[in-house]
Amino acid sequence: MSNQSVTAPRGFLAAGLASGVKVSGKRDLGLLVCPTGAVAAAMFTTNRIASAAVQVSREHIETRKTYAVVVNSGNANACTGKKGMANARAMCARTAGHLGVEPQEVLVASTGIIGHQLPMDKVTAGIDQAAPLLSDTAQAGLDFAHAIMTTDTRCKQAYREVKLGRATARIAGTVKGAGMIGPNMATTLLFITTDAAISKSSLGKALSEAIGGSLNRLTVDGHQSTNDTAILLASGLAGNDRITGPSSNYRKFLAALTDLCTDLVHQMALDAEGATRMFQVVVKGAASKAEATKAARAVADYPLFKCAVHGGDPNWGRIICAVGSSGVKLDPDKVSCKLDGLFVFRNGAPTDFSVKEASKIISQRQFVITVDLGAGRHSDFYYGCDLSAEYVRINADYHT
Amino acid sequence: MSNQSVTAPRGFLAAGLASGVKVSGKRDLGLLVCPTGAVAAAMFTTNRIASAAVQVSREHIETRKTYAVVVNSGNANACTGKKGMANARAMCARTAGHLGVEPQEVLVASTGIIGHQLPMDKVTAGIDQAAPLLSDTAQAGLDFAHAIMTTDTRCKQAYREVKLGRATARIAGTVKGAGMIGPNMATTLLFITTDAAISKSSLGKALSEAIGGSLNRLTVDGHQSTNDTAILLASGLAGNDRITGPSSNYRKFLAALTDLCTDLVHQMALDAEGATRMFQVVVKGAASKAEATKAARAVADYPLFKCAVHGGDPNWGRIICAVGSSGVKLDPDKVSCKLDGLFVFRNGAPTDFSVKEASKIISQRQFVITVDLGAGRHSDFYYGCDLSAEYVRINADYHT
Repeated sequence: MSNQSVTAPRGFLAAGLASGVKVSGKRDLGLLVCPTGAVAAAMFTTNRIASAAVQVSREHIETRKTYAVVVNSGNANACTGKKGMANARAMCARTAGHLGVEPQEVLVASTGIIGHQLPMDKVTAGIDQAAPLLSDTAQAGLDFAHAIMTTDTRCKQAYREVKLGRATARIAGTVKGAGMIGPNMATTLLFITTDAAISKSSLGKALSEAIGGSLNRLTVDGHQSTNDTAILLASGLAGNDRITGPSSNYRKFLAALTDLCTDLVHQMALDAEGATRMFQVVVKGAASKAEATKAARAVADYPLFKCAVHGGDPNWGRIICAVGSSGVKLDPDKVSCKLDGLFVFRNGAPTDFSVKEASKIISQRQFVITVDLGAGRHSDFYYGCDLSAEYVRINADYHT
Repeated sequence: MSNQSVTAPRGFLAAGLASGVKVSGKRDLGLLVCPTGAVAAAMFTTNRIASAAVQVSREHIETRKTYAVVVNSGNANACTGKKGMANARAMCARTAGHLGVEPQEVLVASTGIIGHQLPMDKVTAGIDQAAPLLSDTAQAGLDFAHAIMTTDTRCKQAYREVKLGRATARIAGTVKGAGMIGPNMATTLLFITTDAAISKSSLGKALSEAIGGSLNRLTVDGHQSTNDTAILLASGLAGNDRITGPSSNYRKFLAALTDLCTDLVHQMALDAEGATRMFQVVVKGAASKAEATKAARAVADYPLFKCAVHGGDPNWGRIICAVGSSGVKLDPDKVSCKLDGLFVFRNGAPTDFSVKEASKIISQRQFVITVDLGAGRHSDFYYGCDLSAEYVRINADYHT
């Protein structure tokens, strides 16, 4: 199979290895490099407590060109005070030294346990070892994808091609998911490469729009972490006419980028900690789009319903309860609810549905819940996943 | 031991039996009666979808005197349309018939599965059987307390006495807890009796204040159910000078009532579905009281932290993450966090605390987390409990 990793678009090199930050001995340090310099866009957590890596990258994203991203997993470098900030800066400087560029031309991301200082001897040695390994092979991209994982059980990659005039641009992405997935903003670590030629402002707009309709529609436990980071690097080597504003090429690029992000969202939801199935909650008939979003999210975030999904139990009362609890405007005599195509509640009263059929629907790996509030003409959706005993086990034992 | 059930205050009778609504054959129907007519106050769910019982009781609370409350468990009579409303009214009428009072002088409450019609033949027969059993014994009060339980593993009762001038007033309460405990508003079913003489408006004010500082400070899964109901009945037989407005007797009564509710909150938290320990989150240094409340609730509601508590793991990073994620104003360089008396994070940086000591604190049955936001002078608190694999098992299998 051809390369579908972050090194698939023209002009990118990657590496990933085990530096020793993770006691498991798994890969925990990655480099992603664009030797010709990339146009970069990024989105960061809205958490008021941001990791040192996020704080440093927020500064560095302001430069015209970005040459590299350095990432570690196993340690979030968050809540680590001044020393943590110095360590995040040192990671950029060390990487920049190997590439002969400025520290502010390097972005940094971290993920893992909060509140512990990075073991900088290991991180520094890891960067020194990774630099000579940088390569444009599929394996190098895969190594990078593995280096960003924490409790993920598999690595997540997606790849798309898009025709821009006579040229073909490539887009590839990798994401680490699992727990702490709650909008809004990027959520988790996401790295996307493309060889499309595009201005910094158009790239930023495309990233924001694509994530708004994909990653920002997934909730696993309703929280943003201190470290959420999404970075999009564009090498500009695809040979297309440079995208500089709204145009048909911009829209094509955005569509492909959104499609890639949606693919990654599905991979994340199905690999959420302990998750065995995912669902989409569509809310219609809302008084405003914001109310539709709020109601959809209330269902996707509701522990009791997530447990019912885990049990393959069509306990639709919990859907209606969550919607009502969200406080959105609704008409109790018009509220309806469907599981895939099956009405279980219609105009404020239960239907005579087959419990066997409903159980079958809710036991699928993916299904759709549709709720009509009967209060207006607006709609929106959210993705969610089941809540399992395994989620608790993973998160009760994470630290020790 | 003397009677500490809802029949302990003068002027109350109770009964509880198994009518067959619960397939388990456990008690599921209760009557609480004040033959002389009680002054009543009530608070109901803020869920936009309210059960038929809540809708009917909202009407009936407007009457001057209340003679009885009829309660069933095993079926919520929620999302049941017009038929559900007729059934709730029929429960009041049947009870009123036995007492020779008007249907609107009876309140009704239901709890259990949502979206199923009540088996009215069983409920009606149950009311008929319960009426002749009405008694002022401790056992009758205990039978009533058992009849309101769903997934509770033990029944919850509390009792207080308060001196009002030369008279002594008694207050007793029983609550059903377990899942679906999220403010704001009453939450779950709560029934309190008192023999204090007090006006309807003062009684309503006292109930609202007492619950605001107790039940409304507990979150188990962050949602209000369709059925949350708190009812306070005052027989007026204690012989005190009738409380009709702000006074030292009002404050004494309120203090005793709040203390009783707080006792019940602790019983609820420690018997929440699958819970093994509870904690109080105190947030100080907030820019406003509302922000302190929001931050405290964010911690108490955070699944990742609740899992860590279950694992006895002092993963304080998740506390700080939840606080930051809540979006409240804070000063990152001044934020501090204590587990009981132990600082784990101080002025934006981790301390050199003993992990062993921190683990010991967080493994207690009850402990206190204190977070200082460094952004103001306001404070508030929330109660929460751990999240266990058992919670998932209970809620994945509840329906079937």
